[in-house]
Amino acid sequence: MSAKSIAKKHPDGDTPHLMKAALFSLVVLFAAVSISVSADKPNFVVIFCDDMGYGDLSSFGHPTIKTPNLDKMATEGQKWTNFYVAACVCTPSRAGLLTGRLPVRNGMCSDTRRVLFPDSSGGLPTTEVTIASALKKEGYRTAAVGKWHLGHLPEYLPTSHGFESYFGIPYSNDMDMTRRESHFELADKGDFSLYNVPLMRNAEIVERPADQTTITRRFTEEAVKKINEFGDEPFFIYLAHNLPHIPLFRSDAFKDTSTAGIYGDVIEEIDWSVGEVRKALDAAGVSEETLVVFTSDNGPWLKFKHHGGTAGMLRDGKGSTWEGGMREPTIMAWPGTIQPQIVHEMGATLDLLPTFVSLAGGTLPDDRTFDGYDLSAFLKGETKTAPRDEMFYYHGEQLFAVRKGQFKAHFKTKTSYIGQKKAEVHNPPLLYHLGLDPGEQWDVASENPEVIQSLQELADKHEQGLERVPSQLVGRIGE
Amino acid sequence: MSAKSIAKKHPDGDTPHLMKAALFSLVVLFAAVSISVSADKPNFVVIFCDDMGYGDLSSFGHPTIKTPNLDKMATEGQKWTNFYVAACVCTPSRAGLLTGRLPVRNGMCSDTRRVLFPDSSGGLPTTEVTIASALKKEGYRTAAVGKWHLGHLPEYLPTSHGFESYFGIPYSNDMDMTRRESHFELADKGDFSLYNVPLMRNAEIVERPADQTTITRRFTEEAVKKINEFGDEPFFIYLAHNLPHIPLFRSDAFKDTSTAGIYGDVIEEIDWSVGEVRKALDAAGVSEETLVVFTSDNGPWLKFKHHGGTAGMLRDGKGSTWEGGMREPTIMAWPGTIQPQIVHEMGATLDLLPTFVSLAGGTLPDDRTFDGYDLSAFLKGETKTAPRDEMFYYHGEQLFAVRKGQFKAHFKTKTSYIGQKKAEVHNPPLLYHLGLDPGEQWDVASENPEVIQSLQELADKHEQGLERVPSQLVGRIGE
Repeated sequence: MSAKSIAKKHPDGDTPHLMKAALFSLVVLFAAVSISVSADKPNFVVIFCDDMGYGDLSSFGHPTIKTPNLDKMATEGQKWTNFYVAACVCTPSRAGLLTGRLPVRNGMCSDTRRVLFPDSSGGLPTTEVTIASALKKEGYRTAAVGKWHLGHLPEYLPTSHGFESYFGIPYSNDMDMTRRESHFELADKGDFSLYNVPLMRNAEIVERPADQTTITRRFTEEAVKKINEFGDEPFFIYLAHNLPHIPLFRSDAFKDTSTAGIYGDVIEEIDWSVGEVRKALDAAGVSEETLVVFTSDNGPWLKFKHHGGTAGMLRDGKGSTWEGGMREPTIMAWPGTIQPQIVHEMGATLDLLPTFVSLAGGTLPDDRTFDGYDLSAFLKGETKTAPRDEMFYYHGEQLFAVRKGQFKAHFKTKTSYIGQKKAEVHNPPLLYHLGLDPGEQWDVASENPEVIQSLQELADKHEQGLERVPSQLVGRIGE
Repeated sequence: MSAKSIAKKHPDGDTPHLMKAALFSLVVLFAAVSISVSADKPNFVVIFCDDMGYGDLSSFGHPTIKTPNLDKMATEGQKWTNFYVAACVCTPSRAGLLTGRLPVRNGMCSDTRRVLFPDSSGGLPTTEVTIASALKKEGYRTAAVGKWHLGHLPEYLPTSHGFESYFGIPYSNDMDMTRRESHFELADKGDFSLYNVPLMRNAEIVERPADQTTITRRFTEEAVKKINEFGDEPFFIYLAHNLPHIPLFRSDAFKDTSTAGIYGDVIEEIDWSVGEVRKALDAAGVSEETLVVFTSDNGPWLKFKHHGGTAGMLRDGKGSTWEGGMREPTIMAWPGTIQPQIVHEMGATLDLLPTFVSLAGGTLPDDRTFDGYDLSAFLKGETKTAPRDEMFYYHGEQLFAVRKGQFKAHFKTKTSYIGQKKAEVHNPPLLYHLGLDPGEQWDVASENPEVIQSLQELADKHEQGLERVPSQLVGRIGE
């Protein structure tokens, strides 16, 4: 228990001169108080990467990239090995995290334009409840730092969605080029002069093009500043790095330091950033009142070869509903509250909103459907199993696959790595046992007709109850 | 520092009644003594698995298999991510580990019969120096437990190679069938009745067929018994599990406990075994005087699907010179002496003999060439880099590939997973940068002619200096 957290509860509490035994009792008492402080209104920091693969961290098996801060966080906290995102590309994945709802429920996905672009006129509807707006109601301070990608027109920006402040880029770092050229050739040449993405503070552009060389460092500094600014008030910080999405940048301190090349440099700078954020929480004396969640928005962009990451033993990457596209290396830490362990239970970014609201003592609005589960009892060790036992894998607006327990049925697949243009329909569906076969190599549909049937029923039931709304991703400015 | 190790140095040392400050000095003094004890004649325990893949442990990225004891050992010790075996199949790999010499130097490889079989007349030549015989000269107690596979005729058994005792099976657990049938079909049916491998104590068969259901547990108990028996004398225990080589067995306590199926059960029992061995070292008070090395003999046997393991993001598996065939998940622990860290330096089982002999204060015989490097200075933290910077990848008697630094050139390949029958010759060689591309996906030969040339020269120089001896693996009993 930190001195600061004691001070928070006992602002005028000079420690009296006490005998050893009494001091011991006091320590016990303080420990009990500490638990209730944590359970009261814990802080939340979500560190969200872009296009990082399941296999990109040392603690998730990468043999070359060095991630000592994340490895330490994994050892001190929980390493989740079955943690999913809501979609296999950027915009819908972010919408899913922030709203706790599948993107198909709020128009944040599309079969044609899969994400928002600089010419898009849409964004996350203002009628949506985000983690930030939900926690604000509970008295939280809020800040968004980094990539947004849920609409760059004023009404869709973070400051319109419950965040007090915003510092970051409004969409992907490869959009907004002064002249279109092949990303891959530019990356190979190390030529980043054509990229023109703006850097914003709140609703204003403050730099264009954003100097991405220093961007991970500056986002980190902003997050640290916010931690110090918020002090003893409960807070939620959403730190969404725009890297390792191509084009890759890192600061001078991380230039050519990794044996895994520029991609390794970038991950190692993000790892440094995680260390800085955790150090700042320690220094502010709020580590034990703060749940930190680290994950990424979708799998690695495999077509960029060594400018992209790896999904490790999982199949395929970004843009696909194979595991490599949607299962992410996830680490949570909350010293003193969550038991250090490797978690094989299922979880999803969709679960963060219900979990945070629950931990903050709030309740979810009852006028809409949420797809997330409240993980709080599991995190606090009150239950042995996490509540999530199924996952719906959307590709754009279509349900491509369903997982229940260890079984996953693919009704359609579109393999991103080989650039498959048209979805392949599977009837009967492909079936994989993800426990025996996390790499989805051996179709076991023919041996398990009853499993296929139950997964089909689960999908049908899900789709029957679904209220679809028009896509927000297709409209263009000026149309 | 353990009570026992203090007692060893100070047999009559009753702790006098001391003031706090003096006690502190004594602790410092004892700590210094402890270092010299460790540096004196440390114990060695090598835990060697069979056909375990690079990606099979939780700490090496497996999302499903639970290996808490190995994960703990990795956190407390060193996780080596670039650690190799001497060959991609069983017999030559074991010969390389025990002799510190490439199998081509002592006839322990062949292009036709790649390993020893129950009808083989050959074995590890008695003229070879093994870790056991070298350490025996330094006053060590020695024990071999588990799979041998270096010759089952009396002159080749462990007891003829420097081991005081032997308890285990003489060759692979799938050899010696009462009727030949497809291993895969038998595994699928769960029918293990045809396997007839003997269990030996020293040079006698004591059980046939060996009850493999209890074999991992019994090997563990034997190793623990030896730890207790050897007590304060320096010792070397070679604990070579015959699993997870097919056919897969596990004891009742591990039956259907893993979500990764029977393969997961087997790995989880081996993980339990590691925990028992380390507990026994603790209980005997010798943990801080013992270097434990955990690794496997070659990559996963991929054709057995979920009865085989996974190489994670590495390419191919057992039987091939792609990384998945020869890079192994390796963990070393020696509390108080080796610095906990993730080691990205190269190492190999070939290095164990020179390292152990050096740590034991001995010298290598000068009448033969050793291929291993002495890692002792690196292990003790005296150097930042490990001495190995190259690796020779043999397939049978032929040099298929060479690694120097991060570059690896393949002169020939034979992909095991797809059952490639004939080696493919590459001229120019395929070239991969293992730092950028641990999965060996992107050939960069055309951009790096000078690297190709230097690797070719390294291979030529290596082969020119090589004294080949006739293969020991081809002769048959009665011929």
